[in-house]
This record gives sequence, C-alpha cells and structure tokens, in this order.
Amino acid sequence: MSKEPDLSYKSYLDLGTLLQAQKPLSPAHDEMMFVVLHQTYELWFKLILFELDRVQGVFGNPVVKDSDLRVVSASLSRITDILRLLVRQLDIMETMTPLDFLDFRHVFRSASGFQSMQFRQIEVRLGLQHDARVGYDGKSFENFLPAEDRDALHEVMKKTSLVDQVGNWLSRTPFVEMTGFSFWQSYRQAVMDMLENDRKAIGANTQMPDAAREMELNKLKGMQAQFDLLFGEGEGEPLPWRFDKPALQSALFINLYRDQPALQIPFKILSDLMDVDELMALWRYRHALMAQRMLGTKMGSGGSTGHDYLAATATKHRIFKDLFGISTFLIPRSKLPPLPPHVEASMGFKYWDKP
Amino acid sequence: MSKEPDLSYKSYLDLGTLLQAQKPLSPAHDEMMFVVLHQTYELWFKLILFELDRVQGVFGNPVVKDSDLRVVSASLSRITDILRLLVRQLDIMETMTPLDFLDFRHVFRSASGFQSMQFRQIEVRLGLQHDARVGYDGKSFENFLPAEDRDALHEVMKKTSLVDQVGNWLSRTPFVEMTGFSFWQSYRQAVMDMLENDRKAIGANTQMPDAAREMELNKLKGMQAQFDLLFGEGEGEPLPWRFDKPALQSALFINLYRDQPALQIPFKILSDLMDVDELMALWRYRHALMAQRMLGTKMGSGGSTGHDYLAATATKHRIFKDLFGISTFLIPRSKLPPLPPHVEASMGFKYWDKP
Amino acid sequence: MSKEPDLSYKSYLDLGTLLQAQKPLSPAHDEMMFVVLHQTYELWFKLILFELDRVQGVFGNPVVKDSDLRVVSASLSRITDILRLLVRQLDIMETMTPLDFLDFRHVFRSASGFQSMQFRQIEVRLGLQHDARVGYDGKSFENFLPAEDRDALHEVMKKTSLVDQVGNWLSRTPFVEMTGFSFWQSYRQAVMDMLENDRKAIGANTQMPDAAREMELNKLKGMQAQFDLLFGEGEGEPLPWRFDKPALQSALFINLYRDQPALQIPFKILSDLMDVDELMALWRYRHALMAQRMLGTKMGSGGSTGHDYLAATATKHRIFKDLFGISTFLIPRSKLPPLPPHVEASMGFKYWDKP
Amino acid sequence: MSKEPDLSYKSYLDLGTLLQAQKPLSPAHDEMMFVVLHQTYELWFKLILFELDRVQGVFGNPVVKDSDLRVVSASLSRITDILRLLVRQLDIMETMTPLDFLDFRHVFRSASGFQSMQFRQIEVRLGLQHDARVGYDGKSFENFLPAEDRDALHEVMKKTSLVDQVGNWLSRTPFVEMTGFSFWQSYRQAVMDMLENDRKAIGANTQMPDAAREMELNKLKGMQAQFDLLFGEGEGEPLPWRFDKPALQSALFINLYRDQPALQIPFKILSDLMDVDELMALWRYRHALMAQRMLGTKMGSGGSTGHDYLAATATKHRIFKDLFGISTFLIPRSKLPPLPPHVEASMGFKYWDKP
Repeated sequence: MSKEPDLSYKSYLDLGTLLQAQKPLSPAHDEMMFVVLHQTYELWFKLILFELDRVQGVFGNPVVKDSDLRVVSASLSRITDILRLLVRQLDIMETMTPLDFLDFRHVFRSASGFQSMQFRQIEVRLGLQHDARVGYDGKSFENFLPAEDRDALHEVMKKTSLVDQVGNWLSRTPFVEMTGFSFWQSYRQAVMDMLENDRKAIGANTQMPDAAREMELNKLKGMQAQFDLLFGEGEGEPLPWRFDKPALQSALFINLYRDQPALQIPFKILSDLMDVDELMALWRYRHALMAQRMLGTKMGSGGSTGHDYLAATATKHRIFKDLFGISTFLIPRSKLPPLPPHVEASMGFKYWDKP
Repeated sequence: MSKEPDLSYKSYLDLGTLLQAQKPLSPAHDEMMFVVLHQTYELWFKLILFELDRVQGVFGNPVVKDSDLRVVSASLSRITDILRLLVRQLDIMETMTPLDFLDFRHVFRSASGFQSMQFRQIEVRLGLQHDARVGYDGKSFENFLPAEDRDALHEVMKKTSLVDQVGNWLSRTPFVEMTGFSFWQSYRQAVMDMLENDRKAIGANTQMPDAAREMELNKLKGMQAQFDLLFGEGEGEPLPWRFDKPALQSALFINLYRDQPALQIPFKILSDLMDVDELMALWRYRHALMAQRMLGTKMGSGGSTGHDYLAATATKHRIFKDLFGISTFLIPRSKLPPLPPHVEASMGFKYWDKP
Repeated sequence: MSKEPDLSYKSYLDLGTLLQAQKPLSPAHDEMMFVVLHQTYELWFKLILFELDRVQGVFGNPVVKDSDLRVVSASLSRITDILRLLVRQLDIMETMTPLDFLDFRHVFRSASGFQSMQFRQIEVRLGLQHDARVGYDGKSFENFLPAEDRDALHEVMKKTSLVDQVGNWLSRTPFVEMTGFSFWQSYRQAVMDMLENDRKAIGANTQMPDAAREMELNKLKGMQAQFDLLFGEGEGEPLPWRFDKPALQSALFINLYRDQPALQIPFKILSDLMDVDELMALWRYRHALMAQRMLGTKMGSGGSTGHDYLAATATKHRIFKDLFGISTFLIPRSKLPPLPPHVEASMGFKYWDKP
Repeated sequence: MSKEPDLSYKSYLDLGTLLQAQKPLSPAHDEMMFVVLHQTYELWFKLILFELDRVQGVFGNPVVKDSDLRVVSASLSRITDILRLLVRQLDIMETMTPLDFLDFRHVFRSASGFQSMQFRQIEVRLGLQHDARVGYDGKSFENFLPAEDRDALHEVMKKTSLVDQVGNWLSRTPFVEMTGFSFWQSYRQAVMDMLENDRKAIGANTQMPDAAREMELNKLKGMQAQFDLLFGEGEGEPLPWRFDKPALQSALFINLYRDQPALQIPFKILSDLMDVDELMALWRYRHALMAQRMLGTKMGSGGSTGHDYLAATATKHRIFKDLFGISTFLIPRSKLPPLPPHVEASMGFKYWDKP
C-alpha cells in the first residue's frame, strides 16, 4: 500500500524547514513570540487566499450553479473562523509589554507589517479600492513597497474583485422580475403606503408636543430621501452605492424572502460576506488598540502613526458596506407584498411535483 | 445542621422571580432573545459595580496596604473577564437578522439601551468625565434620562472616580525620590543623552538621502517636544494628561522597574486597568458594527444615529489613556539608569534579612 | 403613536425585579459572582428551551416544509452560540479561588446545580434517556428533586424528543429510494467492492511484513463487521443505534450527496445537531475540570462526587451519537455511486425549468 | 542608521521559505487547511518550548530570586494564552467535514500527529511520566517513533521536569517553619478541631433522619482518612502524591495566606500552573470530540482508536494534579490559625521600615 514508506508527520509538514525559519535579530526574549505570531498570521493569510480562490472560482463562472453554493458558503465560513482566530490571537501579542517591545523594535528599521503582500492581496481581492484607502503619512501605502511587489499587486487589481463578482451574481438573480410580477413595483408601493401612513399618524396625534412632532417628521423626511435615491427620483447625483440597482434590488429581495428554499443559501452567503467585512474591521480596530498600547503616541515602524491610521482603516476600509446598507430599506414583514403563488412555487424543489 | 431545610437551587437563585421577568411586548420570535440578552448584560453590570466597590474601597483608604493589592488585582481581572464575555455575547445578538429585529423594534418607542443606569454608573465610576462625552444628537445623554436617574448619576459624579484614586495612589508611590536618588533626574539625563545620540547618528550618516534625513530629524523633533512637555519645559500650556506629574512619574517608574518585588503587583494592576479600558473600547466598537448591521443608516431607537455615535464613543470615551501614553516615554532598558543598591534593597522582602 | 408613553429601558427589561433578585446568604465577597453567574446560566437555559420550542414545533409537523428549515437552522445556530458562551462563561467562575468558595459553600446545604429543572428539561427534550444516565451516588438524579419537579419532568419525558423527531424526519427523506434507483443497493455494492479491493491489495503486497499484514487484515475485518451490522447480516443482535435503518440511510445519503440543492440545508441541520451535542459534552467536561479545581477530591454540594460524575456525563450523556457514527460508513467520493440524472434533477429547483 | 538597508517584512519573517513549505499530497481542497493548521500548531509548540526554557531556567537556579518571578508568571501566562488559542483553533479544523477528510486521509499512511516531537517534549518537560501514559493499541507511543526521535526524547526525560522543579522550590519555601511558629502544627490542630466539631454537630442534630446521619458521618470518615494520609497517620502505604510533604505543606500555606505580599506572586504562579494543566486537558478532550466527528468508530491514522485514546489522555495525562488536590485540604478562613506578627512581618516589604 505504501510506495513511499518514509512519510512521517515531520516530513509531511516539512517541519525541518518550518521550524528553522524563526530568526530573531536580537537577544530580546519576546522577539521569538513576535516572529512566531507574525508567521502564523502569514500562514493563515495564505489559507484565506486559498479559500478565496475557490469562492472566486465559483463566482467567476458565467452561471453560478446551485450545487456550487455550498462550497462557497463553506469557504466563507472557514474564512470567518480564521478571522475570528486572528482577532483572538492579538491576546498573545498583548502578553508582551511595551518595554519588552522596545528591546528589539530597532531591528526592524523600515520593515513593517505594512508590507505584508498577502494581506494586501486579501484586501484587493475582496474589493478594497485603491482610491478608498486611507493615506499613510499622506502617501499611498504603495510607496513603501518594493517595485516588484507593487507590480504584482497591480496585476491583482486588474482582476474582478469578490464584491464585484457578487454584485454581478446578484444582478442576475431571477424571481425579482417574473411574468406577471414585479417585485420592485410591489415593494415601492408598500414603502410609499408605509411612509404615507406614518405621516398621517403623526398628524393625527394631537397629544404630541410640537417639538416631538417636528422631530418625527424630520426623521420621516430623512427616510423619504433615502428611498427616493433608491427609487431613482433623485436622479442626477452619483449614487452612494457600489452595487448597481439590480444588484441592490436582488439583495433586498433575498433578505425579505429568505425563507424560500431557493433563497436560503444565497441569504446565508450574504450574511457570511457581512461577517467577513465585520471581522476585518474588528481585527483592524483591535490592532489599533494594540498599537496604542505598545507605542503610545510614538510613530509605528515604517513611519506610520500607528493607532490613528489603523483606527481610520477600521472605519473606512469597509468593502461590503452596501450589504449593511440593505437594512436601511427593509420594511416590516406585515407590510411586505406577498409573493404570487407561481413565483413562490418556482423557488421550491422539483421533487414536490412527484406524485 | 439545617435549620432551614427547604433551601433549594430554585429558591437560592430566586428563579421563581427571575424566570418570570421576561415580558416580550410583541409576538416576534426574536424578542425573547433580545430581552434575555439585555437582562444578562444588566446582571453582569451589577457584578462589575460590585467588584468596583471592592477596588474603590481599597484605593479609598489613606494608605493602600500591600496585602490588599491582591484582591484589587483579582477584582480587576474578574471585570476584564466579564468584559471579554460581554464582547463575545454580541455573537448571540448577531444571530438575529435585521428583518427579525424590525418585527419588534417598534415596541421600544423611546426606550433605549442608552438609558442603562448601571452602564452609566460604570462609566462615571471608572472616571469618564461629563465634558469628555460625545454628544448625542447634539445633546448630552442626560436629556434622555428621567429626572431621578439624572440626579442619582450626579451623586455618583461627586465621588472620586477610580482613575483619580489611582492617580492619587501613584502620586504617593515611594522609591521615586529617596535619599540620594532622584529617579526623575536620572531618567531625564538618560533621555537627553539618547536624543542627542540619535541626532548625532543621523548627522553622521552621510549615505542617507536628504529627504530621509529630514524625516528622521522631524521624528526626533516630535519626540523632543513630547519629552519637553513631560519635563515641564513647555510650561504655560495646559498639560494633555489627566494624571499629575508625580503620578505619571510613578507610572513610568513602575513600568521601567517592574521586576522589583515591590512593583510586580502594582505593575500588574496598571496592566489590568489598561485591559479594562481596551475592552470597554472594544465592546463599544463591536456594538457600533452591530448597530450598523441591524439598522443600516436608519436612526437607532432613542433617536441616536447608531453606528457613528457608538464608534465615536469607542475612540473618545477612553479613561486610562495616560497609562497607554506611558509607552511614549519608555526608553530602552540599555539606556536605563541603574537603581542604587539601597533603593533596590528597599523594594525587596524583609525575610531575606533573616540569618 | 405612543399609548403607553412611559415605557423605559428599565421597565421593558423589568430591571426593578431583576436586579433585586440577587440574595447572597453570606458576607463572602465571591458569593455575588456565584449568584449572578448561575442566574445568567438560567436565563440562557430559558432561551435555549424557547428556541427548542420552535425547532420541535417544525419537526412535530407531519410534513416538514422546506421553507421552515431556515428557522430550524437559525434556532440551532443560536443554541450553539449560547452553548459556546456558556462554556466560555466558566472562565469567570474560575476567577474564584477554592478558598473563596469555601467561604460560602456551607450556605447551600443540600441545594445544588443538580436541581436545575431547566437544564434537566433541555437534556430530556434533546433526547437524553432516563436509563442512559450516569448514576449519582448510585442513585437516579431524580431522588434529589422535589416530587413536583419530578412529576413535571416525567411529563416532559412523555413527549417525543428532538432526536426522535429528527429520526422520524430522516426516515421520511425522499430520494433514497426512487423509481429505478436504490441508494442502498448501490452504496452496498460500492462498499463491498471497496473492501474486496483492499483485501486483494494487502494480499498482493509481498513486501509487507507478516505482522503488518495481519494488522491490516484485522482492521479490515473490523470494518467488515461494522458494515455487516449496517447491512443487516448480523441480524438478531440488537443494533447499537438509536435511529432506525431508514433514518441512518438517509443521514448517510445526506452526508454523501450534500451538495445537491435539496440537501444543503438538511446537511447543515445535521451538522448543527452535532455541534449542539459536542458543545454540551464540552461544557460538561469543563465543568468537571472546574469542580476538581474548586473541590479537589471533596464531595460536591448535593452529595455528588463532583469531577468524576461530571466527566462521566461528558462521555456518556451523548445524544446525537448516531450522527457522529455516520463517519464510520462514509466512503471516498471516488467510490461513490453517481446519482442517476432523474434523481439528481429532482433535487434541484423548479425555476431552472423556466425557459 | 541602517547598515543592512534591505531588511523587509518578507525577509525578516523568512516568508520565502515559510510560504513554500505547504505541500499537500492530494488534490483535495481541504488538505491545504489541514497542513496550515498543523503547521501553526507546530509554530506555537516551538514558542511554548521557548517559554518553558525561561521558566525552567529560573526554577533551575539553586535560589529562585523574587525579582525573577515576574518573568516566570509572564511566560506561564503566555503559555496559557497560547493553549487557549490552540483549543479555539480546533474550530477551524471542524470546518472540514468527515467526507472532505476522507478525500485525503489515505495520503498519511502511517504518519500521525502522534509523532509530533515538539508536543512530546512539552509533555515530558512539564512532567508527564513515562509510566503514567495511556497505552496506545496496548503499546507505548514510543514504538511509533523513529529511533532517533526516541533517543532524543530519552535525553529530555533525564532532565528535571517542571513539576519536579516546582516541587523542589515549594519544599524550600520559608515561613512554614519559623522560630516560634509551626504552620503544620497549628493547621493540624485546626483541622482536628473542625472535624471533631462537625462530628458533634451531627450527633446533636436529633431531627436528622438516621439515613442522612449515616451519610454525613461517612462523608466525615472519608475526609478524616484523607487528612490522616496527609498527616502521616496512614504511614506505610505509598502516598498518592507526586510532591513530597514539605512541598504540599508549602502549597497549602501559599493558598491559605496568599494575601501576604511575599506570597502573592507565588500564589499566582501556582494558579498559572493549574491553568496550564487544565488547558492541556481541555485541548485533549476537544481533540477527542473532533476525532470522533471525523472518524466515527474508525481507527485513526497511525492505528490509534482515536476518540477513546484521546479522551483517556485528557483524564489521565494530568501533571499538576497535586495542586488541584490542595483544595481537598483547605479549611474555612474562620478556622485558620492566625499568623504570629513576626511571621507576618517577615512577609512584607522592607520599605515600610523607613521612617
């Protein structure tokens, strides 16, 4: 059964190589932890990229098969579990005190986590746009990369990112428009009725103090403005979304009718993507707190201002923001237009037709 | 042995009362989770306040006894473990989808987590200052509280907060000035030598491009300015610290010489306090992400703008910031002035004197 | 809009009641933590039971609708997230030292966590059988309950448990037998071929030492015996499973062909159930470790022997064991009989038929 | 400032080597996760060993200096944080389904995690004894190691393990016996009084049913027997402890008087050691659950029976059991003999003597 009888745990994992690759440059005790921790980060980044390959492979197909969606969800779940671990892993970094860090911080010179190519690739492949990036000492982070890395990254940028693939997939969702049914028209009517009723109710409430009434009406006006944008009444101004309208409509449809068999897995996938986005933000934020603890108001290695830069990326480097924005447009289930029977039927499984 | 033979698990925990106190106001399935989750938060808040009682009790003594420090550290560790749980607990909140939330969000009307008196007390007792608070719709959060709660909170504000108690305790630390030894003077000299050496090294490095040299010199200037503030050369301007200078000096001393037996527990306590601060920030930030997910860009209940407000509090409602700032002033151990033997000896245990 | 204008955060959560229900019986500091921690456990138990209501409601229907499966999975995921929190929560218990516990342990007298009726209900409703329970001082745990609790529990036992509901649901899965296709027959043939090939390969390997060959053949014999049981050749002896054979066959089918659209959610539900089982075991085991730490080899309150009893329940009080056992019968995908096209088609969505 | 201007993030972490060391042997998607996960385990094991070096270095000194205890505690805390991560990391393993595992399980042949030399070293260095190990298919695990690994491990076994170093350190603790004070004698008297009082109270309780009285008296007898062993009245039989009596006495002393300044850090260290032990057990137990999920009742790779073997090691491979056992001998603080003033004084800091 075994042509290569000498496979061992050690050779399988290439431990001879792996466990020789820790080369602290100072005698400071905590540098070993620092090296090991960053190496494990990079190993997990490699796996995230590997899982993204599978996810992007499926979404890159002209038609996304239903039977491929389980592995998409499995890979995204794995990525979120990894990100949870990476957030958690900062606990170990924080077993180092600032004074211990000072013992070897000088060895880095201009080297910095900023230069992690795998992390940059994850950002780009998920869909972080070049122009949306927070500046770093007023410069693009690319200035801190060697030319070859910069070029490699530019190649990655040319490919369709996950967020755009997902947008395309959503745009193609059936059901939203079917013979004799326009989700968009029904939904819009429901929204307009809801806003109108709210307006009347406020007017009819004679006991409400004037100040409160004004506040309530202002809130309504704000909601109306957001819906107007969605329904295209505010035409002209650039829309604040990355997804196009058909994609937004589908995402909304999936959120509203998620219990339909054909939408259960798509709904789960949209949730998974929001988890990825949220966990990336959380990791950045914890990273910011850690930097503050280690460095106070000193400059980080690589010249960055540490905490402030990282905290800004947590807030601004969000990729699946449109999916979070969907919540703005949800309406209560009680106001939801019911699906026509033939639409609902089309979202079920064939086997029910069997006698 | 048992005069009251009827004590049972149920009566001990008053489960008859406790398990009747969940009163959802809608038929929406997820409201029960919402109620239970918030109730557990409030139970844990009660315990945090109870542990703060013990911590503040010790620090409220005119002399803080060494033998009382273990319980301080134990209570702070318990608080950090609770906070870690509370951060984690948001995972359960996120098992609710925005559409599920919409099913019962209307029942709250103006009620909001904003009104949690226990949470406000925790903030005030730790030391969050009224003026440092982020405004809420341009108003103080107090406007949203009933008069009696506002008054109760004002009473709490009158007491010395934990951060001020810790500042006082630090100011009184011995060792920093002892016969024949001034930590401050030695440390200042070490800093000045270090900066001077760095300046010379930059000047002597003829291979460094001009742009790089300028950047390095700018960095040095920035550090010099911060040290000048610390050493009081920038006199006149208000200092950017909450601690007074003796407290800062002690905190710095404890960080630098933490291995001395008498400083090991104080050092641990300072770390615990930073953990509390960091975990509060992290909880606020995760809360902000969750609000965005649930509400998109809708207003939160109680009129708040949700995500933005919460994210702002994460960054600005920091209480033990001065302790994080200490890292700015740490100098490498190799440059550290050695302690005179009699100072070092005074930080050891008596039993070593025994024959 | 507001008929009851006085709803506040405090009244909504009934905090007046909730925060008065902590009544430590001793002056020991740590008793408050002990009370709060157990109360939060009970609150979460209440929520688990509430989610089980929904899950069991769906499975209690004569036909389980596909559109109801999402909420089943949502409730099970929520339960697993709660269980993860409950495991984690033991960290807080362990901030108490054994000596601190001793300060108030005497107040319990015969009261014990053993008497948590909600926990007993969770066990019974999931499907823990009376006879499968580990004895407690040689007696059934019921002896330690008041008569009314015992009766209440007996009522719960009369209802169909979740594991049996799931078994029934699995037994009814279509696809396994369809016109012109018998999964069981194809699978059995595949297994037999696989075992036969393995046997030949071992025989043909002339380089294998005799001892190794014998070991390999023994392994094969063990596998053969397990498959014989499954295929019913060992008839007569009682089967070591709780599920009947049709249920086992379906579970196997779902595991093997999980990528088919109609099986993706059922597969997720089976995984969720295993997560529940695993997390219950993990909680019991951590509980056992904690008991050992607190009590050493002393008797626990209520007369139990603490660690050993709890560790035994971790291993023996497993409910969805049959689902774990399915792994025994999986065969490599390469040996898997392909599904006939009409069977595969029946597991897809109707909308693909649309022109 | 920079003689080697080309240090980059990539070269510092040797990423060129590290990220080439993943060599899955099959086309199965999940094998990459399997490789990465095990490699991160091995990196963390390396760090655990590195931290153990520091801990064992300090305890290997003829006199353990108080000023060295902080780093001991810091290293132990880091180890526990790593172990917590390793437990948590199994979540990622469980994103793999049994069927996915089957796709590449055959590539291992006889390779198995069993052969992880670093893990074996951790066990041995902590103090797991050869004879205490659970057999594996009835054989010592060494049979599965190549000769060179076996020899290397034997070398490690020859060195004093951490548990023995700690025992030696405890045996040397001062305070337990000081001029005019014998902790042992006072404690023993307190125990005997306590047991005698309990016996009388049971006798005097005329309302107690006979069965209950007998049970209470049996419990007392059990406690008496354990104390007899401790006090040496059961002489002759081998003691069930690894520590010798002076070490046990010191551990007890430290637990009982932990608030004394000189005992605060030693007490923390004993807690850290128990955390290490508990987390190792927890990791083994989760590993056992995972094995069951992946393999059902199949044999694990390497021929082990998986779940049962691993679950047995969780229970039996405990190293700091004696520290858990200390809880058996704690007595309520109210019964604790007070320390004579000169003993208490000797445990304080010198600086209090200053005028």
